[in-house]
Parts: sequence; C-alpha cells; structure tokens
Amino acid sequence: MPIEFAVVPHPDEIARAEALRRHGAPATLGRLDDLGAWVAACQGQYPPRPLRRMRIVVFAGDHGIAARGVSAEQPGTTTAALTALREGGGMLSVLAEAAGATVRCLDLAVDRDDDGVADAEFKVRRSSGAIDVEDALTAEQAEAAVEAGMRVADAEVDAGADLLIPAELGVGVSTPASTLVATLTDTEPVAVIGRGAGIDDATWMRKAVAVRDAMRRAHPVVTDPVGLLRTVGGADLAAMAGFLAQAAVRRTPVLLDGLAVAAAALVAEELAPGARSWWVAAHRSTEPAQVLALDHLDLEPIVDLGIRVGRGAGAAATLPLLATAVRLLAEKAS
Amino acid sequence: MPIEFAVVPHPDEIARAEALRRHGAPATLGRLDDLGAWVAACQGQYPPRPLRRMRIVVFAGDHGIAARGVSAEQPGTTTAALTALREGGGMLSVLAEAAGATVRCLDLAVDRDDDGVADAEFKVRRSSGAIDVEDALTAEQAEAAVEAGMRVADAEVDAGADLLIPAELGVGVSTPASTLVATLTDTEPVAVIGRGAGIDDATWMRKAVAVRDAMRRAHPVVTDPVGLLRTVGGADLAAMAGFLAQAAVRRTPVLLDGLAVAAAALVAEELAPGARSWWVAAHRSTEPAQVLALDHLDLEPIVDLGIRVGRGAGAAATLPLLATAVRLLAEKAS
Repeated sequence: MPIEFAVVPHPDEIARAEALRRHGAPATLGRLDDLGAWVAACQGQYPPRPLRRMRIVVFAGDHGIAARGVSAEQPGTTTAALTALREGGGMLSVLAEAAGATVRCLDLAVDRDDDGVADAEFKVRRSSGAIDVEDALTAEQAEAAVEAGMRVADAEVDAGADLLIPAELGVGVSTPASTLVATLTDTEPVAVIGRGAGIDDATWMRKAVAVRDAMRRAHPVVTDPVGLLRTVGGADLAAMAGFLAQAAVRRTPVLLDGLAVAAAALVAEELAPGARSWWVAAHRSTEPAQVLALDHLDLEPIVDLGIRVGRGAGAAATLPLLATAVRLLAEKAS
Repeated sequence: MPIEFAVVPHPDEIARAEALRRHGAPATLGRLDDLGAWVAACQGQYPPRPLRRMRIVVFAGDHGIAARGVSAEQPGTTTAALTALREGGGMLSVLAEAAGATVRCLDLAVDRDDDGVADAEFKVRRSSGAIDVEDALTAEQAEAAVEAGMRVADAEVDAGADLLIPAELGVGVSTPASTLVATLTDTEPVAVIGRGAGIDDATWMRKAVAVRDAMRRAHPVVTDPVGLLRTVGGADLAAMAGFLAQAAVRRTPVLLDGLAVAAAALVAEELAPGARSWWVAAHRSTEPAQVLALDHLDLEPIVDLGIRVGRGAGAAATLPLLATAVRLLAEKAS
C-alpha cells in the first residue's frame, strides 16, 4: 500500500495577522517579528506560547556512494560522530545545550551491526546503496524509512515538542542530497555541487560524475517522491522526508538546516503539498544545492553565516533567534 | 585640558591564528568560527573563556531637535521607556534576559529633573541642544559626557565585564546620529536618512532639512571629534563615543547595535584610532547611515534581519550567536 499523508492544514492566518498588528507597521524588528508571527500562526493562537520543548532529531546513516571518494571524510567516521554525540560531545551537543534544545539520535542506516550504541529501533539496513549504480533502498526499505520518520514525528509531537529540527549524520550524504535537489529543480550537476567542508578538485569531480550518473537513474521516477528516495536517496533522507511531512500534518513548526535537510524538505513538499508553510529555513549554506532547494520552496533563510556543514549545526546556532522572537511576542502581549 | 585616550592595543593575533587553525580550513561554521577567533584575540588567549558577564549599558538622553517633528515618537516618551526598562519591562529587558546579559541604565540628558528614577550620576544637562540652530552641548559638557563614557567603561571592565553593548535611548537621537555619519563620510543628507521606526514623508523631509542645517554647522569642526560631538552630537552620543574608545583601550570586546551606536563608533575611531578592532557589528539596520558607518569602519554585520530600531535590540538579539561561537571554541579545546 503506498504511503499517504493526511492533508496538510494551513497555519492560522488570524493568529498571524493579530501578531503582525501588535507589532505595528512597519514591524520594528523586521524578520524577528515575522518569525514570532509565524510561530503564532503555527500554534493557532495569539499570543504564542514561548518554545519550551525544542527537539533536534538526528537521522544517522551511511551511503555506499562514499566508497567513490566523494567526501572529505572517511567512511567509518559516522559511527565516531554518532558515539560522540550520544555521549553529549561534539559541536551539535554544545549548540543544542546553548539553545536550550534536546537531541535524539536514530540509526537509520549506519554501516555497523546494531550493538546497542545507537537507537536502532528504526534501522532499515547497513548503509544505503551506491546510487550511481544501484538503488539506495528496496521498495520495502524506502517505505519503512519514510514511515519511520512519520512515526518519530508523531512520537515527538505527542510528547509535547513545540519545535522540531531534523538533522542528518553520515559520510557521503551530500551526494544523494545534491542528486535529489538537482533532479527536482532540473539543474545541471556542476551547478549544484559545492565544496562541502572542504573537498579538493579531484573529489569535486568524482562527486559531479556520481551525481550525473545518479540523475540519469533518477529520471524515470522524477514524479514519484518515494521512488526518488528509493532510487537516489537513502534511509536517512527518506526518514527525514517522512518526518518533515508528518510534522506539518501535526501542525508543528520545523527549523530547517543545511543541504541534506533542504533536499529532504523538497521531497517532503511533494509527499505532502503545503508542508513548507510549517517550515522556516535557519541559514543559507555555502552549498549551491541547499540554496536552490530553499528557493524552490520559497523559503528565505534567517541568517547567512557561511556555514559549510550540515548535522544540525546551523539550525541549532540560529535557534535562539527564533526562540527569542517568540518570547518577545509572548511577553509583549502580557 | 583636551581629552586623550591611551594608545589602543591590537587584539592578540597569535590567539586568533591558533583559534582559526583549530577550526581547520576552510572553517566549517564560517562567520561563527571567525567570531570565536575574534573573542580569543580580544582575550589574548586560546582557548577563549566563555562569555560570562555580558553587559548592556543604556545611555539615555533627549534631543532638542525632536521639537522639529523629526521623529515618529513624541518627546517625553524617553522617560516612559526608561522607566519601563528600569522596572525590567520592554523589549530590551526580554532580549537581554534571553541572551543572559544584564542591563545598566544611565541618564545622560533626559529632559526631566533628577528625581531618583534613573541613575543620574553622569547627567550632563536636560536635553541636548537643537543642532540645526545651536550646539548640542557646551565645550565643558562635551568633555564631561565623553569622560563619563570613559569612566563607565572603566567601571564595567573593572567589575569583570567580558563583553560590552552600548545602547542609546532617546527621542530624536537618529537626527544627530545621521548628521555625524553624513559629516564624517561626506554624504548627502538625503542619502543617509531612512524611515526609522516608520516616519512619514513629511517627517522625513523635516529630518532631511534638520540634517542639512546641522551639517552646515558641523563643517568647521569635521576634524575635531569632541568638537563634532559638541556641535551636532549630544550627551548620549558623546558618552557612547567615550565608552567605545575606552573599551578598546581596556581590551574589551564590544558588540555594536544600530544607527546611534554606529555613529558614536565612527567618532570613537577618530578619538582612539584602531578601536574598531575591538568591535563587531551585530546587525545591518534599515537605516542607510548605519550601513555607511559600518562600511566606513570596515565592519561586516553578523546578521541582516531588517531591524528598524536601535535601543540595543538588534545587538541583544544577535548576542546568543556570538556567545555560542565562543562557547564552541572553548569546549572544542577542552
């Protein structure tokens, strides 16, 4: 049975209009005032409640394409990064704590056997396929991954999350993410690939070839979002797409991070049209594909800090601006 | 005796280089990595200490030019805003608390007698002069105001402040601030005046006339920074200039806010050349004069949120990004 999402509701335009009216015209704090009004619309009430349970969900997974040498990092570092994160170390832990958010890590397709180090409840397989020559996932795995994302979103919302931040964690994920964006925006491979965390010319060229080959494989399924995730995505990207779509169905605002999340969002908007009304883009990345995806979704990033990495860093760093915008509106009203 | 500032030291380039080296090349978090390295340079050590005593100092004052109808606000609202702020209310209180900063309010030239509501230890006069027809201050008042700013900076640094944010509070202050920027950057009045918090066409034209007349009066003292503050500045702007210059002398980093602070910074750089190395610009305002002043100081704003007001709001809103950048670097090293 194909996956279906419930109809995505509209954020509450009356609450938004009330918030903007209280700000006065023109709004003195510009984008901050807009962000506060957006959260009011998502919550369906003016004044909005301050954000109290901000939740970062990390979808970890490896990618067979990493074996082509498309990344600045070695395959295998995914596990090390995941372990550090689960022990409260690493960049994202510091950023999350500073922003008052909590982090949950899920192993969707890390290239290791389940050994209890990571939460593998939703694990789909060990490493997604090398998308230049094979499908990332089987049809069953693609559905399982999208459904995993849906279930995680449901669980987080049921537990009281009032803001969600999905994040990817895995070596090689930017190649399928770039392929998804290039395919859905009909863009040449060379126009979507950036320098990531610092790849050299030879790596860049290998990545361009991989994306070109993967795009050829993606062409027949361009109008089938789950098919796209199966063919040139991966378990992590599929789960994030399901998560993003279901968060919108559940009327929960989401802060988008870098390239991988933007790529998943592009697919999620196909899965659940209108979902983008429930998302705001945290930052403009140095990756051209991220900028293209946000443009396509008509989402304007809050900040442009030249952040080169994903892994939730840019969204977590920007989160205090959003939380403060909501708090300002809540306290102004009281 | 003319006011003299000690020679401004350079931030520690060895600590900065060490921080940037630890980030790797290219720096993955872009501007955030640069900001962390800048604070390390200001502190003269790698890793930097996390910011623990972030201090916002409000320099309140009224301006005679407000009687010309150059502002969207009525004269007299300065006192109301100051009272709200001292009682922990208002926008800046919320933003400061969210950022973990504390606020100190000083009455430099509010148009009321000292009645104990505000800290009037450094009060210079009631309202600075209407700069289109008269000097803002006498020579003695100008020196007293600059020295007040110096003494406040000294006191804050001695009390342990590791980051300072000056802020203005007063109706009409953007007219002398715009005049200072236009004069020091040799720009036409019509090219420096924005819409502030929302002035109409007639108000905008009155403001342009006021700036034009004031610039004519400023011309003879363009090379004399204290003379400029006396002629077309005000007690609040003069105190902020002294504060900004002395913070640099005392090796203490400063986060700059909107138009009034940027104008004071432009004068402070004349008072104490090199002081700008100790400042970072929080945000790009909608006021053209603020953008001009930051360009002139070669300071690139961290964010561009379309913020229309000063009063420390943009700097306080941006502060978490800076504090987090420092924290990341401090924890990465440990």
